[in-house]
Amino acid sequence: MKKNVIVGQSGGPTAVINGSLYGVVSEGLKRTEQIDHIYGMVNGIEGLLAGHIMDIGALDSTNELELVRTTPGSYLGSCRYKLPENLEDPVYPELFRKLEDKNIGYFFYIGGNDSMDTVSKLSRYAAGIDSDIRFIGVPKTIDNDLVHTDHTPGYGSAAKYVATVVREIAADANVYDNKQSVTIVEIMGRHAGWLTAASILARKFEGDNPVLIYLPEVAFNQDTFIEKVKDALTHTPNLIVCISEGINDGNGTFICEYASDVSVDSFGHKMLTGSGKYLENLVKEKIGVKVRSIELNVCQRCSCAHLSRVDLDEAENAGIYAVQVALSGETGKMITFIRNKSIPYELSYGTADVNIICNEEKPVPTEWIIRDGSDISNDFIDYARPLTQGYVELPTKNGIPLFAYRR
Amino acid sequence: MKKNVIVGQSGGPTAVINGSLYGVVSEGLKRTEQIDHIYGMVNGIEGLLAGHIMDIGALDSTNELELVRTTPGSYLGSCRYKLPENLEDPVYPELFRKLEDKNIGYFFYIGGNDSMDTVSKLSRYAAGIDSDIRFIGVPKTIDNDLVHTDHTPGYGSAAKYVATVVREIAADANVYDNKQSVTIVEIMGRHAGWLTAASILARKFEGDNPVLIYLPEVAFNQDTFIEKVKDALTHTPNLIVCISEGINDGNGTFICEYASDVSVDSFGHKMLTGSGKYLENLVKEKIGVKVRSIELNVCQRCSCAHLSRVDLDEAENAGIYAVQVALSGETGKMITFIRNKSIPYELSYGTADVNIICNEEKPVPTEWIIRDGSDISNDFIDYARPLTQGYVELPTKNGIPLFAYRR
Repeated sequence: MKKNVIVGQSGGPTAVINGSLYGVVSEGLKRTEQIDHIYGMVNGIEGLLAGHIMDIGALDSTNELELVRTTPGSYLGSCRYKLPENLEDPVYPELFRKLEDKNIGYFFYIGGNDSMDTVSKLSRYAAGIDSDIRFIGVPKTIDNDLVHTDHTPGYGSAAKYVATVVREIAADANVYDNKQSVTIVEIMGRHAGWLTAASILARKFEGDNPVLIYLPEVAFNQDTFIEKVKDALTHTPNLIVCISEGINDGNGTFICEYASDVSVDSFGHKMLTGSGKYLENLVKEKIGVKVRSIELNVCQRCSCAHLSRVDLDEAENAGIYAVQVALSGETGKMITFIRNKSIPYELSYGTADVNIICNEEKPVPTEWIIRDGSDISNDFIDYARPLTQGYVELPTKNGIPLFAYRR
Repeated sequence: MKKNVIVGQSGGPTAVINGSLYGVVSEGLKRTEQIDHIYGMVNGIEGLLAGHIMDIGALDSTNELELVRTTPGSYLGSCRYKLPENLEDPVYPELFRKLEDKNIGYFFYIGGNDSMDTVSKLSRYAAGIDSDIRFIGVPKTIDNDLVHTDHTPGYGSAAKYVATVVREIAADANVYDNKQSVTIVEIMGRHAGWLTAASILARKFEGDNPVLIYLPEVAFNQDTFIEKVKDALTHTPNLIVCISEGINDGNGTFICEYASDVSVDSFGHKMLTGSGKYLENLVKEKIGVKVRSIELNVCQRCSCAHLSRVDLDEAENAGIYAVQVALSGETGKMITFIRNKSIPYELSYGTADVNIICNEEKPVPTEWIIRDGSDISNDFIDYARPLTQGYVELPTKNGIPLFAYRR
């Protein structure tokens, strides 16, 4: 008997999360002997609970599905809903009733750690009630912090965006004949520094900007930082420093927290100051040079500006492979990337038990963090470079990239 | 007798200012009967005074000159040096001695208002001493605020960048199923709102985000703003508001100044809060919805991410035309763009007396600012759209756009 597919997206958006959605839908549409309809949960599991689903397979008859593929953000919308730990909670039978009402045989969830936790719980509950619905997780996160996979879809494009923008900021900093200046670039990443590490790809030659790069994996010492900046200014008068938003003192305190207890906005509220802003003030105070901080905004996670062809293709393939393994009988799995070789780059697709993936985080290996935690090694460059390759041409209308959106 | 060319760049960088540099150099290299060497001032007129010049024509024998064309920022470096008003100042004979030492016949300066002021003074001084050196200004500014030209090179690419990024931010805002949220995007432009107005190009359909757009040309009323936001939230739950950094109360006070007198950083310094941050706090205080502000960073002026083909070509053509008019005997002029038609787009190149251009600013026409100063008319769209058209393929190395830089 033919079954239906349901697919959802969860967590923060990425530039290629819709590539994975496209992969699931396009492969599902081909499997007409086993699959009937392909539904999308609008705003993830929360939307499913609220009965908010759409017939995403029907988009194939328009050009919209093609457009979804290169649209940044989450086409289906996202949620941050965490299922209860207790599998006896009444939400589980409620969810399964909804899935059975729609004759769902295959459930795909595209997301990061928390989404894999959802897949884990649903697949365990299914096993407990002898349901034959298959649950497969498709990884995505710009943070690149999922275990048991070489990397995650979304990271390559975000890494390429960060490297390009840091190179642009460096070009901008060199425009004026400043005696000395410091630009601090704050990059996303609370606990893992993968994205900040990618800023090294902006370096055009040994000693070029960004000269200093700080990740949350290594304790940040403010005095050492000031000494490093002073030293770097002697050979790089317009200095670029890249930091993760999550740099911390190694004792559980984020650097930004050093500031936020004292700054107050015009209405008397405490202001959340970023680590970049705090270090800007620190450099001004301790060194007295011209200094500015730039917080890369949400575009770093969902910009179409510097899509990596490799990343988009892999995101799509992860979606395709998810449908294939579900049809072949697997459940409770996440799609994984297995790197066979970096140069030339060779990748295989696999699966791993979703239960051992969720709720764990993969930091940047400390042996890749060098010069007292202020720089990144060449091993990282060999790792990251293949993921940023290739150009994706975007459909445009009136000169501006065209995005799909739910009506 | 053959003469030499000198070319410089001044003011803030743009994405295509090096396109104009490429135009001057490539056209100069072709005119071998009249032109011998082509020099570049490093860091503008200040570099010329310091004897800091380079043989930029020599780049043609490498690939570097081709790379300059699509490199954002100012390849030659910039300055913000203002020549003295008094033409009797000893800096003038000093400058002309340096020009004569290098046998300069043609002087090109690529920049905005202040740079045109430099061209004006030098050409007037030249007339006073019967020098036959010809001085031509090549316009550039993302602000688009020069008079006597339909638009300026640099504006089209910056407008395309702003429109694309605002569309991405809108996609990001719609990811979560928020009951209501407000995102305030702060865009460059102290006195003229051209760049902020371009955010309307992000709108996919009538009523789509950004719903509210505020320029410095119209007085900003905080109470009316809050009412407009409340009203807009009733039909657009995830609201995007775009503002110029220079929005003001109409009585000479920037909106950001309402905040900066009270917020203090962790070292006790007064903090410069942007208008976006101030309005974020205002919305939080008065409406109490989820709100964030995003200040578009320096990339809006010098990103290669969304180069407009039309803009880059026109920038290059402005450089080419500058060489042609200088050789034909003109001096004390700025290259101007004359729009013959918007649909289909037709452009001619001309010149205008630089003395009537410098130190004047062109605001967005108030008849293009509608709905009590909170929206932009279709006339603006017809004006701006042709300037953002076409795609430029960037040279890359290891997956990251490749930029030229002075060794």
